[in-house]
Amino acid sequence: MQAIVISEPGGPDVLTWTEQPDPRPGPGEVLLDVAASAVNRADLLQRQGVYPPPPGASEVPGLECSGVVAALGEGVAEFRVGDEVCALLAGGGYGQRVAVPVGQVLPVPAGVDLVTAASLPEVACTVWSNVVLTAGLVAGEVLLVHGGAGGIGTHAIQVGKALGATVAVTAGSRERLDRCAVLGADVLVNYGEQDFVEQVRAATDGHGADVVLDNMGAKYLPGNVSVLARNGRLVVIGMQGGVKGELNLGKLLAKCGSVTATTLRNRPLEEKAAIVDEVATQLWPLVEAGTVQPVVHEVLPVERAADAHRAMEDGGVFGKLILRMP
Amino acid sequence: MQAIVISEPGGPDVLTWTEQPDPRPGPGEVLLDVAASAVNRADLLQRQGVYPPPPGASEVPGLECSGVVAALGEGVAEFRVGDEVCALLAGGGYGQRVAVPVGQVLPVPAGVDLVTAASLPEVACTVWSNVVLTAGLVAGEVLLVHGGAGGIGTHAIQVGKALGATVAVTAGSRERLDRCAVLGADVLVNYGEQDFVEQVRAATDGHGADVVLDNMGAKYLPGNVSVLARNGRLVVIGMQGGVKGELNLGKLLAKCGSVTATTLRNRPLEEKAAIVDEVATQLWPLVEAGTVQPVVHEVLPVERAADAHRAMEDGGVFGKLILRMP
Repeated sequence: MQAIVISEPGGPDVLTWTEQPDPRPGPGEVLLDVAASAVNRADLLQRQGVYPPPPGASEVPGLECSGVVAALGEGVAEFRVGDEVCALLAGGGYGQRVAVPVGQVLPVPAGVDLVTAASLPEVACTVWSNVVLTAGLVAGEVLLVHGGAGGIGTHAIQVGKALGATVAVTAGSRERLDRCAVLGADVLVNYGEQDFVEQVRAATDGHGADVVLDNMGAKYLPGNVSVLARNGRLVVIGMQGGVKGELNLGKLLAKCGSVTATTLRNRPLEEKAAIVDEVATQLWPLVEAGTVQPVVHEVLPVERAADAHRAMEDGGVFGKLILRMP
Repeated sequence: MQAIVISEPGGPDVLTWTEQPDPRPGPGEVLLDVAASAVNRADLLQRQGVYPPPPGASEVPGLECSGVVAALGEGVAEFRVGDEVCALLAGGGYGQRVAVPVGQVLPVPAGVDLVTAASLPEVACTVWSNVVLTAGLVAGEVLLVHGGAGGIGTHAIQVGKALGATVAVTAGSRERLDRCAVLGADVLVNYGEQDFVEQVRAATDGHGADVVLDNMGAKYLPGNVSVLARNGRLVVIGMQGGVKGELNLGKLLAKCGSVTATTLRNRPLEEKAAIVDEVATQLWPLVEAGTVQPVVHEVLPVERAADAHRAMEDGGVFGKLILRMP
């Protein structure tokens, strides 16, 4: 098969479309003919050499894909050859074929085309596992989403609204915030010009955020703790603003708050399968009803993965970038 | 009535036994003739002027007591005059009478005498709410308790063992650790001589602690994050080692860990009542079976509250110090 590989750690140009050995499905795995993959920020880190694949995972980047079941590994009865599916991957999405544990394979939601479905598994599993399973967001609460215009952000806005929450977002421009509003965001904060703690408090009569979904890490930690409401839950899923931050335990204690940090990629298979199962049963119906929609910025041929990475780094992507297989 | 008051912020000598107005039970409250109270570290902070009572609470210190129901406020049907009870208080325990919301009143567990029962409400509610309700400790997990020889620590050891956990503790001397072992602690760490991260890892085949109950705050934050197992939960309930600490979000994220900080005293009444209800239904049976026992260092007359505070500050108290009413 052909696949994008990282010829050496570096800039977008190290992404090379080249011949690679075909993967084979092991016991409990499904082999997919990949239709499309999508770009995640973690792919950029992997390309730079700072986020290596977990042991046993493909060296080919790509944390999600859609495609057609081409073969079944030993013991797999959940899918049939020819089924159209999408999947959460530990790697390998930027290639024409990928083998994936069956617990990470999802049906394509009705009403979503096969290529577009490639944009869903990573954001769906990330948002549902963190906002719902970890933070326990419920109707009537306030959800603050940092990076509201990104792939995860645009999905989190819609999930928050579907669950009956008030959704606040941060983004870097008025135009991006306006598009977040179209997706349902109630409170819009331009992080370049406004203080999110002040803005969220002002918009919620001083209540603050019950749940914060954060991709900035250290840089936003003090503000995120400040903006938490009583019994508030901060969930950190990215560290674009640094790894080591100051935590004011006195503030956290006074409001009985929590800070959780999670990642999806290196979880044990059984945890991933449990999340995927929740997504299929709880979230897919919302997608099929059109309540939560894929937000796709552009579909590019996978050979142009370098251009896709450049676009992500330039910060102008709204929602997801899809890489279509030839 | 007579009560201990804090004449001004300061050392133990500011605790003065003096005439005070009798409290009256408001709607939904119970008036107690106090038999005994017990000393908590928060009392020392309140005496120093750095932990003021929440709005509406008595200025008399004392976060727990036992006693006899003397009168019922409007709408109270759960208890009768003459009932022997113990109670979680927002303040007022160091006085001969106290009014307390009915949701914070517990029966005296069978087999525990009335004076000894004064030592239970605060540790029981603190440990159960944090270790069980917040951190969700389950059988087979590893619980690390800092300050294992204190009131909360000696209780947490027993609750951890009753739930089927392996319990590790830190304390400041071999003698205190030996007494923790008698209560059931499996892993003993002398914090003056040993590194708790190394010791707990070594004793658990590298697994670490699934739940950490911490009273040190900032000082122990890096070590506590290091010692967490995958999906580990750190619960901070005291800040004897400072308020602002460094949180390594990268480490926390790699293990999908969480940091929660809580306090009992300034929670809304309904949250306290929910905790008290869990304690009465889940923990009291363990106390009545003798599985979890009160650990009382000494019973002093309340007029000697200053001596009790000095003893707490000297660090030699094992378990709880009770203050008996005249």
